[in-house]
Amino acid sequence: MYPKSISNLIEAFKYFPGIGEKTAERMAFHVLGMDKIQTDFLAESINNVKAKIKRCQICNNFTENDCCSICEDKLRNGDYLCIVEDPKTVISIEKLGIFHGYYHVLNGLITSTNGINPEDIRLDKLIKRIENSNFKEIIIAVKPCLEGEMTALYISNILSGMNITVSRLASGIPMGADMEYIDPMTLEKAFDNRKKISYNETTNS
Amino acid sequence: MYPKSISNLIEAFKYFPGIGEKTAERMAFHVLGMDKIQTDFLAESINNVKAKIKRCQICNNFTENDCCSICEDKLRNGDYLCIVEDPKTVISIEKLGIFHGYYHVLNGLITSTNGINPEDIRLDKLIKRIENSNFKEIIIAVKPCLEGEMTALYISNILSGMNITVSRLASGIPMGADMEYIDPMTLEKAFDNRKKISYNETTNS
Repeated sequence: MYPKSISNLIEAFKYFPGIGEKTAERMAFHVLGMDKIQTDFLAESINNVKAKIKRCQICNNFTENDCCSICEDKLRNGDYLCIVEDPKTVISIEKLGIFHGYYHVLNGLITSTNGINPEDIRLDKLIKRIENSNFKEIIIAVKPCLEGEMTALYISNILSGMNITVSRLASGIPMGADMEYIDPMTLEKAFDNRKKISYNETTNS
Repeated sequence: MYPKSISNLIEAFKYFPGIGEKTAERMAFHVLGMDKIQTDFLAESINNVKAKIKRCQICNNFTENDCCSICEDKLRNGDYLCIVEDPKTVISIEKLGIFHGYYHVLNGLITSTNGINPEDIRLDKLIKRIENSNFKEIIIAVKPCLEGEMTALYISNILSGMNITVSRLASGIPMGADMEYIDPMTLEKAFDNRKKISYNETTNS
């Protein structure tokens, strides 16, 4: 019904997650309304991202060079290494501005049901990196689920022989959440991890 | 924070209507995960749509040729011409499969407040087309709003001298709508345009 080049573009936009027929159509029509400079920029950006982006040789983060800007930053705190599941989490944590150590990006999580084993997410590379560095604490910041727990346990198990603290981000009720809508697993976790309220701690901190 | 090529792509996606920072990020990461064939197809589709799509010389619809496939279809009913605001409406009506006449796409609506005059939406071209054709009925299918009314009135005024029926799509309560949530203007229109229930009509049709 559409001319071929429009229906091709609609098809191409439909590849994106959460983009249905209607949105893809709207986007395609928007492209038609863009000026040539904008469409050139868009098409070039798509090609560039595919051509230029690779993984950091040290931490697996996205980078256009051999190493990412975080690994190259010698002013960061070499005592801490934060292990995340994907490069998006690096950005989320960096935006907070509360962590000044280094990162290591896994290529997924150990998932026994899908046959994703430690070697598939290159945990050997992570272990070698830790062995050759002076990290004092490894903070595991993968998402709290069965696969996350398994991956965290596996890493902490391997590192147990070394004199390094291995920690995991706290699980519990998200800030501002309505108690009524908390799922049972989160609520159970929040009970298990309940923290004693110390008078000194609350008044001094 | 992101490598340049990723942040460029996020920027490019943010041009789209209804696409915010988060969705643009998700889309950019999705592009990273596509294989080269898919990104080539996407980038090429964007360039193609810009390079190949032009307006039909007869009806202003989108086409890759001089005339669109509808204008070229000699089997359609030459008695009817449907006037729409944009090429998207052509597709919406075509999908219904109930109209078999020809179309004419305006380049907008007369908007006196924004200074969009009849010559800006090339109504002269439409009038000339009608004068040189044998249309029996002109169906105006632009949206029901002040600008739509003005445009419809202007067209029917010019055509009043010719022996052509000029009609307008019915305005009223949308099918299945909850009476409680109908806006006052629509309700008023529905009252004004109320239709006598004819026993013969309902039983015979």
